[in-house]
Amino acid sequence: MKLAEIAGKLGGRLEGDGNLEIAGLASLAEATAGDISFLANPRYTSAVAETRASAVLLADAWTGECPCAALYVESPDRAFAEVALMLSPPPVSFASGVHPTAVIAADARLGADVTVGPHVVIQPGAVIGDRTVLVAGCYVGHQAIIGSDCRLYAHVSVRERCVLGSRVIIHDGAVIGSDGFGYTPDKHGVWQKVMQLGIVEIGDDVEIGANVTIDRARFGKTRIGNGVKIDNLVQVAHNVQIGEHSVMASQVGISGSTRIGRHVQLGGQAGLAGHLHVGDGAVVGAQAGVTKDVPGNCFVSGYPAMDHRKATRIHAHLMRLPELKERVRELEAQVAALRSEVGA
Amino acid sequence: MKLAEIAGKLGGRLEGDGNLEIAGLASLAEATAGDISFLANPRYTSAVAETRASAVLLADAWTGECPCAALYVESPDRAFAEVALMLSPPPVSFASGVHPTAVIAADARLGADVTVGPHVVIQPGAVIGDRTVLVAGCYVGHQAIIGSDCRLYAHVSVRERCVLGSRVIIHDGAVIGSDGFGYTPDKHGVWQKVMQLGIVEIGDDVEIGANVTIDRARFGKTRIGNGVKIDNLVQVAHNVQIGEHSVMASQVGISGSTRIGRHVQLGGQAGLAGHLHVGDGAVVGAQAGVTKDVPGNCFVSGYPAMDHRKATRIHAHLMRLPELKERVRELEAQVAALRSEVGA
Amino acid sequence: MKLAEIAGKLGGRLEGDGNLEIAGLASLAEATAGDISFLANPRYTSAVAETRASAVLLADAWTGECPCAALYVESPDRAFAEVALMLSPPPVSFASGVHPTAVIAADARLGADVTVGPHVVIQPGAVIGDRTVLVAGCYVGHQAIIGSDCRLYAHVSVRERCVLGSRVIIHDGAVIGSDGFGYTPDKHGVWQKVMQLGIVEIGDDVEIGANVTIDRARFGKTRIGNGVKIDNLVQVAHNVQIGEHSVMASQVGISGSTRIGRHVQLGGQAGLAGHLHVGDGAVVGAQAGVTKDVPGNCFVSGYPAMDHRKATRIHAHLMRLPELKERVRELEAQVAALRSEVGA
Repeated sequence: MKLAEIAGKLGGRLEGDGNLEIAGLASLAEATAGDISFLANPRYTSAVAETRASAVLLADAWTGECPCAALYVESPDRAFAEVALMLSPPPVSFASGVHPTAVIAADARLGADVTVGPHVVIQPGAVIGDRTVLVAGCYVGHQAIIGSDCRLYAHVSVRERCVLGSRVIIHDGAVIGSDGFGYTPDKHGVWQKVMQLGIVEIGDDVEIGANVTIDRARFGKTRIGNGVKIDNLVQVAHNVQIGEHSVMASQVGISGSTRIGRHVQLGGQAGLAGHLHVGDGAVVGAQAGVTKDVPGNCFVSGYPAMDHRKATRIHAHLMRLPELKERVRELEAQVAALRSEVGA
Repeated sequence: MKLAEIAGKLGGRLEGDGNLEIAGLASLAEATAGDISFLANPRYTSAVAETRASAVLLADAWTGECPCAALYVESPDRAFAEVALMLSPPPVSFASGVHPTAVIAADARLGADVTVGPHVVIQPGAVIGDRTVLVAGCYVGHQAIIGSDCRLYAHVSVRERCVLGSRVIIHDGAVIGSDGFGYTPDKHGVWQKVMQLGIVEIGDDVEIGANVTIDRARFGKTRIGNGVKIDNLVQVAHNVQIGEHSVMASQVGISGSTRIGRHVQLGGQAGLAGHLHVGDGAVVGAQAGVTKDVPGNCFVSGYPAMDHRKATRIHAHLMRLPELKERVRELEAQVAALRSEVGA
Repeated sequence: MKLAEIAGKLGGRLEGDGNLEIAGLASLAEATAGDISFLANPRYTSAVAETRASAVLLADAWTGECPCAALYVESPDRAFAEVALMLSPPPVSFASGVHPTAVIAADARLGADVTVGPHVVIQPGAVIGDRTVLVAGCYVGHQAIIGSDCRLYAHVSVRERCVLGSRVIIHDGAVIGSDGFGYTPDKHGVWQKVMQLGIVEIGDDVEIGANVTIDRARFGKTRIGNGVKIDNLVQVAHNVQIGEHSVMASQVGISGSTRIGRHVQLGGQAGLAGHLHVGDGAVVGAQAGVTKDVPGNCFVSGYPAMDHRKATRIHAHLMRLPELKERVRELEAQVAALRSEVGA
């Protein structure tokens, strides 16, 4: 696409050759000829002079030099996202209809304009909402209910009686409604299975990453609120409750019956013990190990997780521990000298 | 179900209206009209007065007030599990027989009353025991052997020559028998694959969670003992041996050739280095990093993992490190004063 | 196989009965009658005398006693791997050709001698290279390109437009090209999806473990270099770049836009924050939490990750913290005594 055409669509001010052909996007450091780049973070200012990009998106207020064509816009970050859309192939589309290899129970109910891809299995009593797309090889268990405008990618499993809202996106291989991990030991220490009789209930506008696992409740519901976003390989145990618009990064693990508030953020690989409560707006750092309740709107980190400022302070002391030991050794020498001095 | 009917089945003493219709179960805090709840943990005693449940299961010895119908039983916890079964829909059943879309090698052998669901693939030489259920889309590799009364949920993969005992449950997406992670670098640092010639052997009464991965041995067997329970997203590397009736929570990772004893418990996200031995009855805390052998019947935690009491003690000292530093500073001032006093 | 035949194939010197029938391989401690074992690590020397193996592979230079037949070779380790191959069943083979249950778009292009197993789905515009094997139930998205001599095990998902090199092995359930985890909050804290327009590009000779997830780039490419080996359940976020011949153990998580150099090694469960750079030849310890750039050829560990020698030193100080506190207490007593002595 010609640079002038991009400038026209963005409504930005162009300095440079509008006939340049732009084929790709890249960061300032990685761009080569034919790429357009952008400067949004002042930290990268010095990278502008060295970029090999053909053009750079700059803020209107930018006054520095630019070694290539420059396109001045209000928000280089947002403009970059718009250019990405211009240069990208259109998103993949799936023709609606039921593929002949899909296996659909006679009493399952399918809404209007549903797409059921190859090798999908829909068990008796299941319900699929309007315009929902089951890409390929998905499994929808007995009496499961999936809302409208959802998209389930390949090999997603939604087990019996689980309920999904509308506009839910689930990536490949995620499992919704596997049995919770519940056993009681008999007198020989042999584990007896506790039946997991509940379901998973997922709200609207939820996105769930690849190979995520969300267990059904022992009884009642494991609940994922509206607008929640869950990254790949996250584990959500039985009876966990997650409030609206909370997000959790990859490989987080949440133990049974823990309740997460609204607008909570959990960093990657964080682990939460069971039966805890995390308050609204709380932030849990990556790899944190949460062993007790977390109040709302606070930031905890470390193992066991504590207030982040405290964790940082303790860590700074820990790093200076060798020095502290030296000071104690010096004191010991001085005190010994004093003691012999005063004849103690 | 009427409360009187529940009372009759449990054999408990009812105080309140037996005609109440009970439709659900919930904790004291979450219950609403139509729910039955229970008090098992004295910690929640105060929640009884505030519950909105229609009925509560209480211990025979309970003497407090109850704002709703009360059902007195020997064990409220056990009674609650029984009521859960009464109120839950029956478990999902799968009609036995082979679905026409399943692809089964001519020389595979199927036992009596086997269920082979849609899109299952069974490779040459595989053997499936009596009454075993392959729900849908499962893959059973060449010469793999699966015992009787097993259930494999959707998209489970059991690779070539692996062997499962009887009454094994495997949840959706788990992979049994992928290649172990073995390479040797050549002189250029290029990794050459070491053939993984062994198998995975799983005992009886094992349950394996969703998206778990268990690698085949380099040679010989990766072995999972009878009665072992493995939660979702756990990694078991090649040649690991797990003793009978051990349990491991979600996202645990066990490195190659490590041997876990019997009745061992591994907390969530714990990681174990390779070639270690964990003794019978040991407990490893959540997120622990185990870098050396763990004796039997001991409890280790932290990184690197150590005796839990020691870890707790060290942690307490760490938390008081700022205070210790203050004490050193104060000593320095006092010693300096003393030294000038005595003319040192 | 007779021991004499093994000796002949290895070209080793045999002491003992060449007619012994060898059926299995095992470590010195675990071997029983009919097994052959080996001594490669001097640490296990004492295990030779106690082994119940029928034969042991020993180094030419070995001068100790051996309670059973002995086969002297240059490298017992390498010889053992060769014997493992002799005694193992041949690797599983898949007849080339397209299974009738596979669903292949009319305009997909398949190379020569391709194997497309049961229930595989290949979407429009996809390209599969010569001799590549798609075992069963794999999903290949629109316009995805897979090179020659690849093997994708059951239920692997390669999403739209992703590109794989040649001789790539992907184990069961891995997902290549799921959407990156990208959202921006609106003024109500509601997360709006950022379109993930890029792809995943994988080089030659890469091996990817079971249930691994690799996200497509926001735009541009998530890139996995030639010869990279990735263990089970690893997470690679959008726009990550991994240099040639790097390896990462199970359950590693790499956050968005982080660049990993060549010949890097990441230990199990290590987590890396986003937008970092890890230099060539660096080693990251198991469970490390990497929060800033790692220089080339250095070894970091701990949380937050630091130079491993420093981490070890700090840890040693930490373990002696109770003792340090005692020394401070003793100093306080002595200083108090001195102060009363000198009348301070």
